[in-house]
Amino acid sequence: MELLVVGSVAFDSVKTPFGEVKEVLGGSATYFSTAASFFTNVSLVAVVGEDFPKEHVDFLKSRNIDTTGLVRSAGKTFRWKGEYTYELNEAHTLDTQLNVFEKFRPSLPQSYKDHKVVFLANIDPDLQRDVLRQINAPKLVACDTMNFWIEGKRESLIKTLKLVDILIINDGEARELSREPNLVKAASKIRELGPKTLIIKQGEYGALLFTNNNVFSAPGYPLESVFDPTGAGDSFAGGFMGYLANSMNLDDDNIRRAVIFGSVMASFNVEDFSLNRLKSLDYQEIENRFRDFRRLTHFDDI
Amino acid sequence: MELLVVGSVAFDSVKTPFGEVKEVLGGSATYFSTAASFFTNVSLVAVVGEDFPKEHVDFLKSRNIDTTGLVRSAGKTFRWKGEYTYELNEAHTLDTQLNVFEKFRPSLPQSYKDHKVVFLANIDPDLQRDVLRQINAPKLVACDTMNFWIEGKRESLIKTLKLVDILIINDGEARELSREPNLVKAASKIRELGPKTLIIKQGEYGALLFTNNNVFSAPGYPLESVFDPTGAGDSFAGGFMGYLANSMNLDDDNIRRAVIFGSVMASFNVEDFSLNRLKSLDYQEIENRFRDFRRLTHFDDI
Repeated sequence: MELLVVGSVAFDSVKTPFGEVKEVLGGSATYFSTAASFFTNVSLVAVVGEDFPKEHVDFLKSRNIDTTGLVRSAGKTFRWKGEYTYELNEAHTLDTQLNVFEKFRPSLPQSYKDHKVVFLANIDPDLQRDVLRQINAPKLVACDTMNFWIEGKRESLIKTLKLVDILIINDGEARELSREPNLVKAASKIRELGPKTLIIKQGEYGALLFTNNNVFSAPGYPLESVFDPTGAGDSFAGGFMGYLANSMNLDDDNIRRAVIFGSVMASFNVEDFSLNRLKSLDYQEIENRFRDFRRLTHFDDI
Repeated sequence: MELLVVGSVAFDSVKTPFGEVKEVLGGSATYFSTAASFFTNVSLVAVVGEDFPKEHVDFLKSRNIDTTGLVRSAGKTFRWKGEYTYELNEAHTLDTQLNVFEKFRPSLPQSYKDHKVVFLANIDPDLQRDVLRQINAPKLVACDTMNFWIEGKRESLIKTLKLVDILIINDGEARELSREPNLVKAASKIRELGPKTLIIKQGEYGALLFTNNNVFSAPGYPLESVFDPTGAGDSFAGGFMGYLANSMNLDDDNIRRAVIFGSVMASFNVEDFSLNRLKSLDYQEIENRFRDFRRLTHFDDI
């Protein structure tokens, strides 16, 4: 099924111990839709400025991503500048210029309104609900959020969570949202807020999936070279939701496979700056790494 | 096969966010041998002081642990005092009193010298080699170490590693020993120092096993209540080595199972202070949790 995503498209400037790039293509919706495009058709809702080059739009189109909902506004594109030390799990934000993103009020093209599968990337929870209201009959809604909204817009976020089937957040955010240090207890509390399926990302350590009385632990992929973690979480969400939207099977077994496809996409994404690795990727490589994940975790019964 | 362990027997005083205990039974060799005793016969080499009560020795004997090598010296037993915050992965040492442990020079009873399987817990690497010299024909040697020896006795430690088949350390130690932040590269460098099998523990996130061109990722067990992480690493090593010593099968498949049995023992150990949980444990619970670990990580092929 068609997968709708709303989020940011940005220029990122990133420094890691292994190199540095300036004003390269980034943003949650960009990483998400590119990763998801290996599995299903994606419809993008986002805003860019007058400075956003045609080559980036052409790239998204080359991945078969519907850019009808990519609005160009007067002003500059959202810019983010960050740095990673050897502790690659945590980005240190040096500068954020919201620019056209500041007044972004997503308005869905008519052709998007019958889409059934939706991913609300990390934006203001008010806007997340605003997008949902424009969709006629959403069937599967997933979202992301961050500490900024957990702290600053908690009530609005909780309203959004009531409408959400799947929440994908990292461990620090899960602890902050639930006000509970133990992740298992945190997961129970968060699932009571609405999302019956909860994925807690743990950076290089992998991810935990919580469904009804069921926990699945996906490993991190042990990479010899991690170049740039930017976009790992969004690539994870893209692989996960792309696979689910394509299969539309919400059995526990299938959701587990979706988590692994998410992990696969994240593991490729961190191998290079920006979307460079995803640009050169083909589906056979994705399947091969899925099988690597199986070898990585498999052990025989006693 | 009989499993020989040399390490510390101690009184621990521990404070966690969930409670506090004073001068309870602890020490690396205690946790190790108790965990291993569920799988094989264990022979203990350690030293205690005149203040070490008979009830603790009786407990070890009740687990079928050979205490011929448990020496009682004039003076007080080794004492450790530590604290954990909600960040349960890291112990903050408040006080260490080596006492009789300071002059500990392990001398193996005659009945131990033909043992083939040896675990050298975290002690001075000079002493680790000293123990090995007293064993006639060791077949499988594993060891642990810590940042104190990596920093202070690096050359001696490297000599010990040449004699070791399996090294079990945590991720920070692996990075420090190899002087390499990337764990995959760190593992390659460490394996070149001697131990062909390397286990890198990652606290609540699980453990990585590196063998020839092969990586296995064992998850952490998602526990609703973690009371006290003290002894988790030694319980892991005990379950791992106990299972290997019993099966004496070093196939990759069997080593992977051993890692899971190690993880099982660590997951039980953290559920209560001191060795309380291991004291009440039975083998059926161990097998059940082994199967929980399978359910936790299993996913179907595509």
